[in-house]
Amino acid sequence: MTLEQIRKENPLVHCMTNVVVTNFTANGLLAMGASPVMAYAKEEVADMASIAGALLLNIGTLSTEQIESMILAGQAANKAGVPIILDPVGAGATTFRTDMSLRLLNEMNVTVLRGNAGEIASLVGVKATVKGVDGAIEGDTIELAKKAAEMFNCVAVVTGAVDVITDGQLVHTISNGHPWLTKVVGTGCLLGAVIGAYVAVRRDDVVAAATDAVAYYGIAAEIAFSKTNELGIGAFQQAFLNELALVTDEKVDQLQRAEV
Amino acid sequence: MTLEQIRKENPLVHCMTNVVVTNFTANGLLAMGASPVMAYAKEEVADMASIAGALLLNIGTLSTEQIESMILAGQAANKAGVPIILDPVGAGATTFRTDMSLRLLNEMNVTVLRGNAGEIASLVGVKATVKGVDGAIEGDTIELAKKAAEMFNCVAVVTGAVDVITDGQLVHTISNGHPWLTKVVGTGCLLGAVIGAYVAVRRDDVVAAATDAVAYYGIAAEIAFSKTNELGIGAFQQAFLNELALVTDEKVDQLQRAEV
Amino acid sequence: MTLEQIRKENPLVHCMTNVVVTNFTANGLLAMGASPVMAYAKEEVADMASIAGALLLNIGTLSTEQIESMILAGQAANKAGVPIILDPVGAGATTFRTDMSLRLLNEMNVTVLRGNAGEIASLVGVKATVKGVDGAIEGDTIELAKKAAEMFNCVAVVTGAVDVITDGQLVHTISNGHPWLTKVVGTGCLLGAVIGAYVAVRRDDVVAAATDAVAYYGIAAEIAFSKTNELGIGAFQQAFLNELALVTDEKVDQLQRAEV
Repeated sequence: MTLEQIRKENPLVHCMTNVVVTNFTANGLLAMGASPVMAYAKEEVADMASIAGALLLNIGTLSTEQIESMILAGQAANKAGVPIILDPVGAGATTFRTDMSLRLLNEMNVTVLRGNAGEIASLVGVKATVKGVDGAIEGDTIELAKKAAEMFNCVAVVTGAVDVITDGQLVHTISNGHPWLTKVVGTGCLLGAVIGAYVAVRRDDVVAAATDAVAYYGIAAEIAFSKTNELGIGAFQQAFLNELALVTDEKVDQLQRAEV
Repeated sequence: MTLEQIRKENPLVHCMTNVVVTNFTANGLLAMGASPVMAYAKEEVADMASIAGALLLNIGTLSTEQIESMILAGQAANKAGVPIILDPVGAGATTFRTDMSLRLLNEMNVTVLRGNAGEIASLVGVKATVKGVDGAIEGDTIELAKKAAEMFNCVAVVTGAVDVITDGQLVHTISNGHPWLTKVVGTGCLLGAVIGAYVAVRRDDVVAAATDAVAYYGIAAEIAFSKTNELGIGAFQQAFLNELALVTDEKVDQLQRAEV
Repeated sequence: MTLEQIRKENPLVHCMTNVVVTNFTANGLLAMGASPVMAYAKEEVADMASIAGALLLNIGTLSTEQIESMILAGQAANKAGVPIILDPVGAGATTFRTDMSLRLLNEMNVTVLRGNAGEIASLVGVKATVKGVDGAIEGDTIELAKKAAEMFNCVAVVTGAVDVITDGQLVHTISNGHPWLTKVVGTGCLLGAVIGAYVAVRRDDVVAAATDAVAYYGIAAEIAFSKTNELGIGAFQQAFLNELALVTDEKVDQLQRAEV
């Protein structure tokens, strides 16, 4: 009943995310029932992260000044027991992104690391051939996710056609979702925030919280697609926000395609 | 006939606002018939503010560099007689936001201060128990608004289920609007910009201009809700932009629920 | 068959654009079949520009730090043979914008310069009376475009009710499009990115690529308007994204109103 709890408690998710997806991330969190707050200034990020239910760090349009703010926020979150979601957008694409992601992982304890297989492979140091724009790789995604979870002592969520969620021991896979998600910018980024909202109200079982978050998200996409496939992806984007608000825990239980 | 005048004159509203809501703010201003311009660089903000019809300062994702730009812009606006709308987003949530809002109020003459009750209370120095995510407080919002107007020598617009507009003497209340406005990020921020457009073409009566702006805004939300309540809040967001373009002065006169 | 090629190759368009339109630009590129990436940090822009299919520089919310990043990116793009699209948003409105645009034109070889007549006139040094918010001028737009193309040794795309595309010799005009494009923020900015995607897959004929891009864009707007004119401009914005995904090369050939 995590969604119901989110909608009752409206957990505050402090998002330090990229300039491309801020609006979509905030609207997605509002739609699902959480409370977004964006704050970036060195002077306030520790304060904000400490009172949040979760902290999202997303490096999509990172600058060196923001890295310092993210470290301040992350260390304050750790101190206050606030879970941290890290999304290493584009790690592997430039050295800067790989280095900065590893620096964040080094300077704080990350609760959930979410990325596509290509991004996670670059952090783990695995040579991987990225096959497409969604960052899918040739090779075993489950092994990759387990390695990341062990190496960074976190729950790893590796998203793709099949999503893998693992703490290094327990492994869940979810095969909900729809390819049109890759046609709307920021759907990966928003998923990180949604995981944050789930973990905020269910800190005692991060693997279960992240798994349900991923299933919920994919189900909302499936329903949105079923209502807009004849209109196009502009319509899908709007319908997806509608469904984030409308999907219930019951729907998630009923429609999720999970394997343990 | 303020809307008609806005649609004829297309007043330029110089927005220095937060990264979450820039796009929505610009589209909302275009929809209503005003002309948005965003400019942040120290090198140009004074030039831009001087030629604008109104200047909006919104501290939603403030940095210390931006504060300097905002002061330059605000002082240029004061010199040129351009009205300033200040939106102290999140004042009270962190010390940084409260301090920066008070600094802006100190360094320039603000024409309209717009915030929810919690934000305004933190600036006025009133201890207030915030009841919910929309910043409603326990206690008398009208007294709070009057105090803010007197203390900062401006028109205060305190928004909530009932909106209060006052210059410290005259008090108007508006009870238009819809709760779904709180489900779309940036609707409070856009309202600040909309008030800017109204004041730009009606500088001689700021209380009347702000009151009509608030009524217009709430009416657009009511109509948008009536058309989308079965679809969801993604659809509402789009319909709201539609209605910002379609609502007329006549509709505002006819549908506003105002009290003096 | 440029659109088909874009949809097959998904060219990476590295966008350094303004904070108002980042999300819309990324979604527009995804809709048409290209791959957007936004990156701004000095540490990575040269890497990113070098592997891109095209680089878009848009000065809409420029800061002095960003100018340095843009120069690094532009020079790396030149070295790697990656075409550059420059959009001098608001040149002429403030001295800062005019100066920065000219500086970019001076520090790198720009492939396509896209702006409205007012912006281009200010760069060319022509005194022009701007007639409206869309930057239309009194006077001969074709001569202006030719002068810009010669002066900056690039293809100039001067947009307005009729769009002019020229390398200084060849002159194409396109009269597709719809006035509602001026009611959605970032449609000019997104056009720059769309031209980037076209030029990325057709570097051997930049004039033809830019002309087709402009026609395609206008046609998508015409179809979107025909489907939403009774709903309003919020609906138009979404339908426009739908059509960017749906319009084909055949539609472009069939519906374009071009003159040479």
